[in-house]
Amino acid sequence: MLCSLAAFAMLVVPPQSHPTPEELISLLLNKGMSELGAQRMLTELTTKVGQRISGSEGAGRGVEWTKAQMTAMGFQNVREVACMAPRWVRGNRENAKMSTGYGWSKLTICALGGSVGTTGLEAEVIEVKSLDEAAKLGEKGRGKIVFFNRPMDSSLPSTGAAYGGAVDQRVGGASAAAKSGAVAVLVRSVTLANDDAPHTGTMRYQDGVDKIPAAALGIQSAERLSAALKRGPVRVQLELSCKSLPNVPSASVIGEIVGSEKPDEVILMGGHLDSWDLGQGAHDNGTGVTHALEAVRLIKELGLKPKRTIRAIGYMDEEQTGTGSRAYLAFAKASGQKHYAAIESDAGGFMPRAFRVGEAHLEAVKKWEPYLQSFGIERFKVGGSGADTSNLAELGTILFGFEPENQRYFDYHHSRNDTIDKVNPREHEFGALAIAMLAWLLSEEGV
Amino acid sequence: MLCSLAAFAMLVVPPQSHPTPEELISLLLNKGMSELGAQRMLTELTTKVGQRISGSEGAGRGVEWTKAQMTAMGFQNVREVACMAPRWVRGNRENAKMSTGYGWSKLTICALGGSVGTTGLEAEVIEVKSLDEAAKLGEKGRGKIVFFNRPMDSSLPSTGAAYGGAVDQRVGGASAAAKSGAVAVLVRSVTLANDDAPHTGTMRYQDGVDKIPAAALGIQSAERLSAALKRGPVRVQLELSCKSLPNVPSASVIGEIVGSEKPDEVILMGGHLDSWDLGQGAHDNGTGVTHALEAVRLIKELGLKPKRTIRAIGYMDEEQTGTGSRAYLAFAKASGQKHYAAIESDAGGFMPRAFRVGEAHLEAVKKWEPYLQSFGIERFKVGGSGADTSNLAELGTILFGFEPENQRYFDYHHSRNDTIDKVNPREHEFGALAIAMLAWLLSEEGV
Repeated sequence: MLCSLAAFAMLVVPPQSHPTPEELISLLLNKGMSELGAQRMLTELTTKVGQRISGSEGAGRGVEWTKAQMTAMGFQNVREVACMAPRWVRGNRENAKMSTGYGWSKLTICALGGSVGTTGLEAEVIEVKSLDEAAKLGEKGRGKIVFFNRPMDSSLPSTGAAYGGAVDQRVGGASAAAKSGAVAVLVRSVTLANDDAPHTGTMRYQDGVDKIPAAALGIQSAERLSAALKRGPVRVQLELSCKSLPNVPSASVIGEIVGSEKPDEVILMGGHLDSWDLGQGAHDNGTGVTHALEAVRLIKELGLKPKRTIRAIGYMDEEQTGTGSRAYLAFAKASGQKHYAAIESDAGGFMPRAFRVGEAHLEAVKKWEPYLQSFGIERFKVGGSGADTSNLAELGTILFGFEPENQRYFDYHHSRNDTIDKVNPREHEFGALAIAMLAWLLSEEGV
Repeated sequence: MLCSLAAFAMLVVPPQSHPTPEELISLLLNKGMSELGAQRMLTELTTKVGQRISGSEGAGRGVEWTKAQMTAMGFQNVREVACMAPRWVRGNRENAKMSTGYGWSKLTICALGGSVGTTGLEAEVIEVKSLDEAAKLGEKGRGKIVFFNRPMDSSLPSTGAAYGGAVDQRVGGASAAAKSGAVAVLVRSVTLANDDAPHTGTMRYQDGVDKIPAAALGIQSAERLSAALKRGPVRVQLELSCKSLPNVPSASVIGEIVGSEKPDEVILMGGHLDSWDLGQGAHDNGTGVTHALEAVRLIKELGLKPKRTIRAIGYMDEEQTGTGSRAYLAFAKASGQKHYAAIESDAGGFMPRAFRVGEAHLEAVKKWEPYLQSFGIERFKVGGSGADTSNLAELGTILFGFEPENQRYFDYHHSRNDTIDKVNPREHEFGALAIAMLAWLLSEEGV
């Protein structure tokens, strides 16, 4: 019976260029959930292209793959927006072991993105819980390896908030510890998963402070190290072959459906093409790119003619220095086009739950909530869009952030476990449908 | 900083017997998300006890394990509510292979629960899409194996609705086909996963109709069989060693915190202890039991003194004939206690999204939505509670159904893939916290 109903829906809603929202919901569900195009594309991006760390061959293949996909699907104005991307390479030596005086045992680590390497060092370890504590160690820190071990706060319902409360150790730990004369830092992986997969991510050196090596510890390794420190002094040997090389030319990629009435008003949708070099960059952030590719594909293949231009983007270099985001802002300014709205997806391919939007526009868009609930979106809520699109605020762009269910995101994020098998095809597709629906409403009705 | 905030929350909200809802949210988040007791218990239930199909030794171990857990955690009035449980056994021979005339190739199958066995039969296959089509085959069906191949409707956002639209083939397919003289049925597994794991589940024979064997096909096997049928006649050989044995004594298990002011008004929470014999019965429905055990544990260990009696239950025999549910209703009637409310959890241990409630009470409970949003519950919505508790309606009990995110549920349901590794510890715990919060509000404020 339900199959017959679906067939009936197809019958009474033939392809048309300007369906009602209710008709479009049915069209998107029928086509999207039977074709599952987002997952088909992500499977290619994660397995054929693979990891896409900024400046790498993989990132270059990601750029080519995205252009080829857009072209094959008939997107208009497919092009690169050039940027100079950082190139940090991990190399093939990452080793750490600890000793309490009775032999050495291995710790599971990975270098943090941007860290200097070390051909080998050995020092006593001191554990701290904050940047401030590290910077105030003074003589107690001299010559030591400082171990940052403050966990994410598990009691926060939002894992994003918990991440935000712990990630300062990863980003700023090295320079804070160097101020006390430390020789290296080890940082508890910023995750709530209870495994031993280390999670990388960007770190930054402060100007004028010694650059010391920085690595993430798997959670179980961090727990072992902390337990050993409770019993007495612990020494660690550390070797990291990572290094920074000169920046290389790279690009973000865009492609679009030109608006039928207001071609110079752009609705931008997407995420970032670059990833970390562990795993496959599936949730972070292949899904952000495939959400946008699939949304444009569906709008196009359904024969819709949006009034405004709907553009998909895969940004380069979100993870490290944001050069792709800055280059796109400059491109947008020079284009003479109005950037009417942007929808960023950089929180994974899990089931949709909300769209964030600036407080100024919240009331105006709440009327669309009933149209989005078929795709799992329960509400619009106040919040920012994401790292890549937030600089469009200076153009007056209305900014939206896609917010899927977030409990599992940081289990995989920046680790070897961020792989395609962690992405459910239906949950992933619902994200693309929600974004397509919002883009269409923005295009047709405006805010 | 966030860690300090959490510590502060602990400081200003000391254990007390009657916290405000806001205080209780903080208490539950702090204790629940750091201890993750629901997952600890489910790990034991799924790996030490294992599968718990009605009438089996596993089901018996499940009853003993639940009583032992309740007793160890200090629940009051721990007891069994006896029922006579059906005992259907799969045996160790389940084989199917197909031939288009050029040798035989294996099909992945499992017997449907309740099916008669066959020492071996071979027949030509005919594909249908509905019960009606099967019953009307007439002479075309005589001596054939009828293959039900209508998929779940992927365009429905609710996988539960899609399941409801396809499951009639599994439950009623055998008798419908037998009316046309068929000798056996094969049913496409009722799932949206694209793998070859067959999904079992209950089937029923109509009185007065020949009982013929019934098995589920893995999705990929169903697709292969359907493709072969498009090319020409296909014969299938089928062997099933399953059989029904006499019913055996079994029981549901209950344990509680006796209410401090209204001990004879009961708030019942739980799911079912029995499972199918494939997998571990993790999402279906270990989590329903561990949600309730953890909710009572938290309320008890936080030192709360509920006004009404809060009772956890693990029902026996939800999957097959509902004897546990009927026995509990009789027990409830005989107890002299008022069953004030019941909260059923039988949709998995995924992230909470809603509680269903009867239309008559929707407006009255909507005021509690803000208290439940910290645990992922976005709203109360109109709907039923579930198979085990719905018969309490005749006692005037206010019925709630726990509704977590549902996209992945039927990927695992009734198959070998319903295992503990598919349950995320935080998502699982949030379910327990949401149920604890709702039970507390019902206990303290009433509707």
